[in-house]
Parts: sequence; structure tokens; C-alpha cells
Amino acid sequence: MSAFRAQGPGQLRGPVLVIGTGLLGTSIGLGLRGRGVPVYLSDPSPTNQAVAVDIGAGRPVGELAGAAPELVVVGAPPDVTADVVLDALKRYPDAVVVDIASVKAAIQADLRARGADLGRYVGTHPMAGREKSGPVAARGELFTSMPWVLCPAEETSTAALAVARALATDLGAVVSQFTAEEHDEAVALVSHLPQIMSSLLASRLQGTPLHALSLAGNGLRDVTRIAASDPALWVQILGSNAEKVVEILYGVREDLNRLIGTLEDPTAPGARLDLAQLISEGNAGQVRIPGKHGGPPQAYSWLTVLVDDRPGQIAQLLTEIGEIGVNLEDLRLDHSSGQNVGMVEISVLPNKHDHLIEALNDRGWRVLQ
Amino acid sequence: MSAFRAQGPGQLRGPVLVIGTGLLGTSIGLGLRGRGVPVYLSDPSPTNQAVAVDIGAGRPVGELAGAAPELVVVGAPPDVTADVVLDALKRYPDAVVVDIASVKAAIQADLRARGADLGRYVGTHPMAGREKSGPVAARGELFTSMPWVLCPAEETSTAALAVARALATDLGAVVSQFTAEEHDEAVALVSHLPQIMSSLLASRLQGTPLHALSLAGNGLRDVTRIAASDPALWVQILGSNAEKVVEILYGVREDLNRLIGTLEDPTAPGARLDLAQLISEGNAGQVRIPGKHGGPPQAYSWLTVLVDDRPGQIAQLLTEIGEIGVNLEDLRLDHSSGQNVGMVEISVLPNKHDHLIEALNDRGWRVLQ
Repeated sequence: MSAFRAQGPGQLRGPVLVIGTGLLGTSIGLGLRGRGVPVYLSDPSPTNQAVAVDIGAGRPVGELAGAAPELVVVGAPPDVTADVVLDALKRYPDAVVVDIASVKAAIQADLRARGADLGRYVGTHPMAGREKSGPVAARGELFTSMPWVLCPAEETSTAALAVARALATDLGAVVSQFTAEEHDEAVALVSHLPQIMSSLLASRLQGTPLHALSLAGNGLRDVTRIAASDPALWVQILGSNAEKVVEILYGVREDLNRLIGTLEDPTAPGARLDLAQLISEGNAGQVRIPGKHGGPPQAYSWLTVLVDDRPGQIAQLLTEIGEIGVNLEDLRLDHSSGQNVGMVEISVLPNKHDHLIEALNDRGWRVLQ
Repeated sequence: MSAFRAQGPGQLRGPVLVIGTGLLGTSIGLGLRGRGVPVYLSDPSPTNQAVAVDIGAGRPVGELAGAAPELVVVGAPPDVTADVVLDALKRYPDAVVVDIASVKAAIQADLRARGADLGRYVGTHPMAGREKSGPVAARGELFTSMPWVLCPAEETSTAALAVARALATDLGAVVSQFTAEEHDEAVALVSHLPQIMSSLLASRLQGTPLHALSLAGNGLRDVTRIAASDPALWVQILGSNAEKVVEILYGVREDLNRLIGTLEDPTAPGARLDLAQLISEGNAGQVRIPGKHGGPPQAYSWLTVLVDDRPGQIAQLLTEIGEIGVNLEDLRLDHSSGQNVGMVEISVLPNKHDHLIEALNDRGWRVLQ
């Protein structure tokens, strides 16, 4: 059984109105309902709304009657979010209104230009998602431990910001605060650029003989994993954050052109230095990515254990690592190819590395590193 | 204890001479010694050679005396490999000579141009490695289940090819056969291009505020994982395969320019279609990557289980999955941020997905998908 701790009571009292019962909106409804908050649901698609009601994410908006929502959550596509927020601010003059779109600056600018009451509005971005979409895919736990960025405008009141923060923390998310501009720049880099690089790479695999792809290893698999993402979603995201993304892509293009020039004449003076620089700059950037649980980047030590590829082997290994008393920082299964032998890559704190290898060897495991 | 199966006797009888006792050469020595094959070691660095001898990878080349090696393995850097192979072919006129450099066409062409006896030569590429280098990092199991590509020239004799194949299979590798040109094209795509894309991306993180990097999720981590690679190694690899790599990069540049054009004017007619096409082409390429154990691409179903982030939880989960009788296809730990709650992502065959979710729910685990 799971020892996951029980949920405490939330800070929001409700009622909360969720407009847009897609994956995120419905998940918010489910999560708040699980904490006893009254939730009402509205969606332009009667079917979507009915599904969200049926799975217990809240009651139909019609039943809100004259009651005044404490909070309205707008879960609409980015290109109509400002319209829906504006409408909600007018229709519910006592409510705080938040949106959950994945880009923020354009929406805020649009609302300001149209004279919206920004004192009651907070742009937010819960950085959670799933490969599936729609209300059926919703889960009340979707936001647990995930980042949720709050982007208040200068006009946003402290009280409104507190309500937005309560929404995120009630749902178990990790809250951070950015300006809308900072947010869009940050996600252009940490989210939109990786998607683009992964898609550009994977796109090159289209015409390749399968023979060649049989040599694929974990490197290729890692870099192309997110290339499986949904085109419809990414059209919206990239289109809405085009300005920030394109600015970063100019830098990528410059580096790519320099690399192409070097590889066109790889024996020219300085060519080796250029190549070393490309990889070194990648090293320097990669090492800055924060570690587990948002902590400082930490160099973990990796070791690899060979196991037979059958049920129970990996569980047995992890049980024994637990008995040895070493905490697992990360784990990967290696399945590049052949022979039904699996490799389990394990990362631990560097000071545990040698002890763990010795202890596993003593227990008869075959350890590579 | 590990149920890893015992090693059978190998096909090589030896003696085998390994020239170049770096990571790969020394690992070959260790692996063959473990199977009882007599191994001799040579390295231009007396220290490296002595270390390799000390850890049991073979005896110093001086002790070979007049004996004729069955096989000479050249483990030299790509830019001197042809010289060393040529010398070995002359010095040991009865031996098969293989090299293990990671690019193949230029070496073969160089040897042919210099009149080498290609009948006794096989270019090979064991696709195994570690983050560390040098003889100290060597492991006899390094090649287990990893691809090992054989690239015989047209002149290579069947007998020589059989010896090269015996080397790879004795060490537990999965053998495939390519022409040198095919090999270099394939690795340019499945190995060198991912490295470049990962480094280009990670390089952009150099100047970013850490604030922004705190939003990093698994997408960024996956795509930049190999950006931590060794610059010295990659200078050699990219420099030696420049022609094949640059040809692929022209295609990447074309796609990147098209994307930049689209994002510079994201509301122009056709812009959304262009963006959708980029992501869709990535989808189409990504899905062609072969599945586990080199099998056909297989769509696994993923589910996510919440666990407390402490020793024993993950082992307990995997033990219960074993009890439920479902085979794990892949597993990842999610540690994007906060709160000491871990997420374990598990992939299983699609027809096991719903059953596993139900069974885990029954046992009190909190399952997201």
C-alpha cells in the first residue's frame, strides 16, 4: 500500500467556477471537489461539460443561480482566453478571475488594452499536462508537485493574488511568481525550445531506412521523446509566444551556421577548437539545470546493474538497494537492443556510490560502474 | 541475488593483441580474459598499458614474443587508426586486424589508398561507452547487449569477417553488418545529430537567470541529457564524420529557417499549418524509432504513480506490479520539483494498462493515468 500522506483542508472556500472543462479545467474541478470546495462547470461544448459533471468535477454552471463565485478559473485556448476572462470579470464583479493558459504576456496586454479590471485578474500557468486531452483524461492529482507560475499584473490586488495562490497550493502545486514577460521568456527557453529541437531532430528520421534506425540508442530516444507531442496544442503555444521563441531561435541559427561552416571544412585551422567549443558550451548550459525537487544542480554518480529482462528482477534490485540503505536519486531502464538482458542505471549521491557497488557485488549482482 | 545467466565459452582461441588500452580496448581485454582467451596489451602510454595489465585485461605485448596473434584489435583515436591498422597488418601477417573507431568510411578509404591488405581487415564499431574514460573505467561487461557494427570492405575475406564476428559475440554484443558508408550515414543521424541538437539547445541555457531554469521539467532534462558529453571525444567524432553530418544539418537548417519565417509573422495565412507540420513531422519521425530489444516500434501505455520520496517506496511499488503479474516495459522517475513527492512513470503493453491501474488502485496506490 502507498504511504502517501493524507490531504489537508484547502484555503479556498468557493464557490469556484471553472470555464472550460478540458484536461486542466476538469482536473482543477476534481482536485477542488476532493478538498470539499463547491465547484461549478461551464464549457461551450455541452458534451464536454456533461462529461466533466459526470466524472464528479463539479455541478453545471446553471445551478450556480445567483450565487457569487469566489474565484473563476478560465481554462480556454490561448487565442480566446482574453475574451473569456474579460467576460468573466464583467459577469462576476466580486470574483477573482485567473486563467491557466501557457503563455501570459499577450493575454495581459490584450486585457489592459481593453480596459479590463486587472485588480481582480491573475494570469497563471500550471505546468502540468498529460499525453491525452479532454475531460475524460482529467485527474485531481494532476498538479501535485508540479510548478504553477503566478503572473500578477502591476494592477493586481494583493487579495486577488492570495486567492490565485490558494488555488495552486490547495491543488498541491509548487508556486512561483514571475512577471508575464519573464514567464514567457522562461518557458520559451525551458519548454518551447526543447520541443522545437526535439521535433526538428525527429523530423530527420522520416526518410531513414529502418536498418539505420536499428542503431538507435538512449541518446536518440531521450532527445526525441517529446517529439511525440500533440501538434494542435503546440500550434497554439508556439503561435502565442512567437516573439520570445524566435529571438532564441536566432541564437540557435547562428550557432548552427557556425557549426555547418566548421564541418564543411573540418581540417581548417581552428576547426577542432570550434567543435570543442560547441560541446563545451552545451556542457556549461546543461550543468545549470536545477536538480531534483528544484534544488541546486547536483552531480549524481551513476552505476549500471545487469538484470534479466523479466518481472521481479528490478523490484528485487530496488528492494536490496533499500536494504543496503542507499537512497535512489534517479533510475533509468536501458533497452537499446538485444538478448533480453536489461540494464538498470541508478544514480545516487556521490558519497554512496562506491559503497553501493561493493554491497551489490557482495550480493551477487553484476554491476558495470 | 542476480539470476543473470552464466557465460558460455567463447569462439575466439587467441592470442588476441589489443593495441590501445583506453576504455574500449581495456574492456575488450577484460571481457576476453573472463572467457579464458589469452590477451596481450600495447599502448603508446606505458602508464596506460601498465594500468590495463594491473587490472587483469591481459599481459604486456612484450611477452607475446614470437607468438602469432589470431586477432589484433586496434583501439586508437580515429585520426591515427589507419596508421596503426596498417602497421599491425604488416607486423602480424597471419592475423585478422579490426579497429573499433566510431567512424568507418574514411579509415577504410585511407587503408585502401595506401595498399593495405584489406582481406584481413574488418572495420567495426562497438556502440558502447561510459561517461568516464581510460583503462581504469574499463569493464568486461561493457559490450553486453549493445550494438556492435561490422563494416567489412569488399576485399575482406569471409574468414576475417568470422573472426571479427566472434569477437563481438564472445563479448555479448548484438552484431549487425553495414557497409562503411551506410554505417557513417546511420550514426550521423542516430548518434551525431542528437548530440548536436542537444548541445545547441543546452548552449542557450548558459546566460539564463536561474529563476527561469527553476521551471525546467522532464522535457528539457531529456533533451539536454547527452549535452553533458566529453568535448574531446566529440571533436574527433564530428570531425571524422563531417561530410555525412553536414548533409543532415542542411536539412535541419532548412526546417529551422522555415520555422523562423513562420514565427516572425505568426498570424500570416498558413502560419498555423506550418507550425502543425513541424510538430507532425516530428511525430512521424519519432514513431519510427525501434522499440525495446531492437524490436518493432511499439506504442506503450504510460501511467503515473505517486510515491513518497523515500527509500523502499519504489521497490515496494515494483514488487506489487510483479505480484499483479504485469511486465514493466519502461520506467522513469519524475523529479521536476518540490514537496518530496515522487512520481513514477511506468510503461506497459497497452492491453495491460487498465488492469494495472485497477489493481494498483485496489492496493491503495495513487495512480494518475
